[in-house]
Amino acid sequence: MGRNQRGEINGCTMDLKALIRDIPDFPKPGILFRDITTLLSEPEGLQHAIDQMAETLPVTKPDYIAGIESRGFIFGMPLAYKLGCGFVPVRKAGKLPAAIHRVEYDLEYGHVALEVHHDALPPGCTGLVVFFFRATAATAAAAAKLIQQTGATLAGFSFVIELEGLGGRQRLPDTVPMSVLIQY
Amino acid sequence: MGRNQRGEINGCTMDLKALIRDIPDFPKPGILFRDITTLLSEPEGLQHAIDQMAETLPVTKPDYIAGIESRGFIFGMPLAYKLGCGFVPVRKAGKLPAAIHRVEYDLEYGHVALEVHHDALPPGCTGLVVFFFRATAATAAAAAKLIQQTGATLAGFSFVIELEGLGGRQRLPDTVPMSVLIQY
Repeated sequence: MGRNQRGEINGCTMDLKALIRDIPDFPKPGILFRDITTLLSEPEGLQHAIDQMAETLPVTKPDYIAGIESRGFIFGMPLAYKLGCGFVPVRKAGKLPAAIHRVEYDLEYGHVALEVHHDALPPGCTGLVVFFFRATAATAAAAAKLIQQTGATLAGFSFVIELEGLGGRQRLPDTVPMSVLIQY
Repeated sequence: MGRNQRGEINGCTMDLKALIRDIPDFPKPGILFRDITTLLSEPEGLQHAIDQMAETLPVTKPDYIAGIESRGFIFGMPLAYKLGCGFVPVRKAGKLPAAIHRVEYDLEYGHVALEVHHDALPPGCTGLVVFFFRATAATAAAAAKLIQQTGATLAGFSFVIELEGLGGRQRLPDTVPMSVLIQY
């Protein structure tokens, strides 16, 4: 992906991990929460994270960036703005007002659903990247299904944070390219 | 604010309202929902909306942009990216992992709470803009309280959509400057 563990790219070095705060036992005992609010509050960290995501995109410019509510909005929108793509919000149940596709799935804290508008992506559009950061990739896999239900082509995944060792990669179609900004 | 009803600014004309889809009776009968997903999916609309928000900012560059979950993330983050500010997520209850300030308030659909980290904004920082779009401004007023609780100065509000005639302006401190991208 053209960068090393310290986030070096094009001669610019910034340790993005150093800007992320670790909070033990959140949201429940035994979980180490990676708090990205401390990265976002640093203008240089914010700029570098978005620029690096754009430079390490797993595909050439997609037609649309789909961001999964709500931290996927935080990273997906500036990326769409920077790249000149359209942005598609993939939302939690009940938020979108027009006709929707829905995928339901299980997470450790319960049964959830994601939705996207029927007409969010025109059938046959040439690319799409879903942004998200989770451990098991169950949510990213659900969003991938939604994109395909619209008739669009899933061009790739771009994760902000990937927690390795939790089987996330295995849940995603291995023919779809992906990039990761920060790996633990 | 340097633009007219059709969104003209610096010689560039784009009718942002024409990109917004009106959905009657959502989320409940009698409500006309202004659906911005159709604006976001148009790359030119997305670019123009963010650029126009930046150009009509009610203050000179603030230190931080605070976006209210979750549509405030959609507009707040690209603005922070463009302006070179830090971004502060103002989140719904239970999402932020570190020590928080909380403000509770009533909306038409129930009692809700917003939270921000204690250390999200350093005391005395020179500016802040809260982004949001609502009718009554109850949520924006709550976010304003949160910002002040951190010890920072509330520099202004920037709304994506304002529904006039619902008393929103009266709920906000009239000494704080504000801008509106699209007015109904």
